[in-house]
Amino acid sequence: MPAWTSYLETSQDRFHTELLDFLRIPSVSSLPEHSGDVQQAAAWVAARLRSAGIETVEILPTAGHPVVYGEWLGAPGKPIVMIYGHFDVQPVDPIELWTHPPFAPHVKDGRVYARGASDDKGNMLVPILAVEALLQSTGALPVNIKFFFEGQEEIGSPQIEELVATHKEKFACDLVLSADGGQWSETQPETLVSLRGGCAVQVDVVAANRDMHSGLYGGVVHNPIHALTAILSSMRSADGVIQVAGFYDEVVPLTAEDRAAIARVPFEAAKLSDDLAVTADFGEAGYTPLERNWRRPTLEVNGIWGGFQGEGIKTVLPAQAHAKITCRLVANQDPDTIARLIAEHVAHNTPPGVRASVSRIPFVAYPYMMPADHPGNVAARAVLSEMYGCEPYIVGSGGSIPVCSTFLRHLGVYTTNFGFAISDENFHAPDEFYRLSSFVKGQHAYCKLLERLAL
Amino acid sequence: MPAWTSYLETSQDRFHTELLDFLRIPSVSSLPEHSGDVQQAAAWVAARLRSAGIETVEILPTAGHPVVYGEWLGAPGKPIVMIYGHFDVQPVDPIELWTHPPFAPHVKDGRVYARGASDDKGNMLVPILAVEALLQSTGALPVNIKFFFEGQEEIGSPQIEELVATHKEKFACDLVLSADGGQWSETQPETLVSLRGGCAVQVDVVAANRDMHSGLYGGVVHNPIHALTAILSSMRSADGVIQVAGFYDEVVPLTAEDRAAIARVPFEAAKLSDDLAVTADFGEAGYTPLERNWRRPTLEVNGIWGGFQGEGIKTVLPAQAHAKITCRLVANQDPDTIARLIAEHVAHNTPPGVRASVSRIPFVAYPYMMPADHPGNVAARAVLSEMYGCEPYIVGSGGSIPVCSTFLRHLGVYTTNFGFAISDENFHAPDEFYRLSSFVKGQHAYCKLLERLAL
Repeated sequence: MPAWTSYLETSQDRFHTELLDFLRIPSVSSLPEHSGDVQQAAAWVAARLRSAGIETVEILPTAGHPVVYGEWLGAPGKPIVMIYGHFDVQPVDPIELWTHPPFAPHVKDGRVYARGASDDKGNMLVPILAVEALLQSTGALPVNIKFFFEGQEEIGSPQIEELVATHKEKFACDLVLSADGGQWSETQPETLVSLRGGCAVQVDVVAANRDMHSGLYGGVVHNPIHALTAILSSMRSADGVIQVAGFYDEVVPLTAEDRAAIARVPFEAAKLSDDLAVTADFGEAGYTPLERNWRRPTLEVNGIWGGFQGEGIKTVLPAQAHAKITCRLVANQDPDTIARLIAEHVAHNTPPGVRASVSRIPFVAYPYMMPADHPGNVAARAVLSEMYGCEPYIVGSGGSIPVCSTFLRHLGVYTTNFGFAISDENFHAPDEFYRLSSFVKGQHAYCKLLERLAL
Repeated sequence: MPAWTSYLETSQDRFHTELLDFLRIPSVSSLPEHSGDVQQAAAWVAARLRSAGIETVEILPTAGHPVVYGEWLGAPGKPIVMIYGHFDVQPVDPIELWTHPPFAPHVKDGRVYARGASDDKGNMLVPILAVEALLQSTGALPVNIKFFFEGQEEIGSPQIEELVATHKEKFACDLVLSADGGQWSETQPETLVSLRGGCAVQVDVVAANRDMHSGLYGGVVHNPIHALTAILSSMRSADGVIQVAGFYDEVVPLTAEDRAAIARVPFEAAKLSDDLAVTADFGEAGYTPLERNWRRPTLEVNGIWGGFQGEGIKTVLPAQAHAKITCRLVANQDPDTIARLIAEHVAHNTPPGVRASVSRIPFVAYPYMMPADHPGNVAARAVLSEMYGCEPYIVGSGGSIPVCSTFLRHLGVYTTNFGFAISDENFHAPDEFYRLSSFVKGQHAYCKLLERLAL
């Protein structure tokens, strides 16, 4: 038994108390009135890194919320591993749906309920505790460690890209481990190998300078809602294949190996029907639902509006109609290129009698894909296989974690997902919770992984 | 010179004063707090009919605002002519855009400014004064006269159809003259021969029981906005020809004579570009803009909404999307049939993965068409030609005046338009006005027309 095992065992009561202390800080990054709390959470993290034995700790200011950086570089010749997480949290609305106050952590049946318990305070505290156990029990770490904990993940990390790009030396490393992630279930681990990126545009169609009487002008003037629906309909086939010229040009095709790995993962069809009341799954022919969600791009209208929306009827021929569109992008699509292709498509498909314009909405995320057999993944999979007693699924996500592509594009390193959240833990929702078993399991897993990365 | 000429001349000061008195009553039918004022306007009209010499006058109650009915049936063997108008008015908002208070009539440069001056109090007072002049100067009228003045036109005449249908004997007549209408310009008269009807439906498309994350579900679940835009796009061709099966089956085609008459009427293209900033006229090939507006049906989305409409972006895959549709219908389309055809079209064009429903919105108007050479029109055209020195245009309207089809369907009589509003008089808008020259000209015109209808 390695020395860190007994250190972890004897420290659990203290770690538990510390977790609750951390969860009491209402570090909601989206609300200006909580910016002092985000600062306080940064100070708490910095102090906790120091008490773990990390001597070099800094709070890096940005134009927004800060980053807490720490480093221990006492293992010459060994890899540099940078551990990522975030100490900011989502807002708590609708607060009336919480069983207990979101910043008064409540422990029950092996779970701690609080905003940020799972996303991401519980998860990001885990590697700090693992590093403390290794350092205090052996006097050293098996690899060089950097910590990168940010306070703006829940608002899209607006200053992180610039910070990373301008401090490439400071953050240089061989691998990132992200503690902002999870496992498939309590009994099934996973390896995350792809994330989708995204971009967003607004389409505005104008027919006239004011709403018109549908009787006096109907049949004479184009209706911008019809023009918009025609433009939007031209963008997708009936089964959702995107018709924008060039849209798929840079998409990395699925290999037979990718498809076999995805086929191992169960698709939870019952969730669509039972939970969401969806009548049928939808998407382009020739791909399974998980293949479509993880490895195929989308173009979705997120919102549409124009004309009269009240009770009854107003026989108006509206002046304008509008739609917001986001695309989910896969490797190697470029958000700027895709937004430009959409603008060109709109220009080519705008009928006479209306004017259409396309503007960017601030939302850019680069798609991310890493090899399943990257050394970071191989090490993580070995640890997880041993601890869970089964092979991790190789999964993607239909969503975006922008920081992974930020590290890849500016530091040239991949990010291995190594977090212990489970998808039922109500992230971003009332009664968020974290399993205390994950909290302990994670500490052991990080100790094992850091040792393995030294080999 | 007929006797009524000098009667009119000597009465103009009094008539002018009475018009201003009538305009001071704020008979806004859409606002419950003005229902007493609508009653007061009814009493004013009833009293004015009596003082004109009409002995049989009644205020007919309805479930809403009343109708004032009067009759003079002292010309046996002569036609019965029913004169229609309305004494209720539109609301005055935005009141801050009025130069003078809307119910304090202001006379300037030969115009009287007040809410209802043109639509329809000035116009409906005209035939009462003409009848008084004929009756007081000669002791009799050349034809039998009924008056039908309503107090609910501006809210769509919700009780008028039932009232007419249940009192067919009382309202039986040979011709209706509508004093709720106008002439093409101060120098150009018109004969109105067609009005469009209408019906309205709402289309609701549901994909799921709540909004979803566009990353986690995009590519797996159908987007109801895309489903709705596809359904709506399937309803019209690129140039607005309606693709709903059976939609045009009952449409009365334009004859060569109709087209020649419409071709005489100038289409005000500059109004589209200069006033409305419209870039091109729009509609089905093979028809002029006025033919399309007056004699071809439309299907217009009046409003659309779904998903996120705020600032920025919310990467939501929405649960629902909605649209309101009205059709403008032409003779002999039936509103109920058309609504049913649209519902069938939606059912046939709803893709898998969403549910769509179509519900009626309370708006039904029957299209109206009368022969240009109907005896009522022939008489009116003779009077107008003589007074204006030119042939009246034969025109249609793209809008609806439901009462015309109500009289036709329940009483079997056509309505000849005989009003003296001009389209620049700001109906339904701030600074509504009526030309005092129209007020006087109209009195002479009605005297001449009633005499001619006796021939």
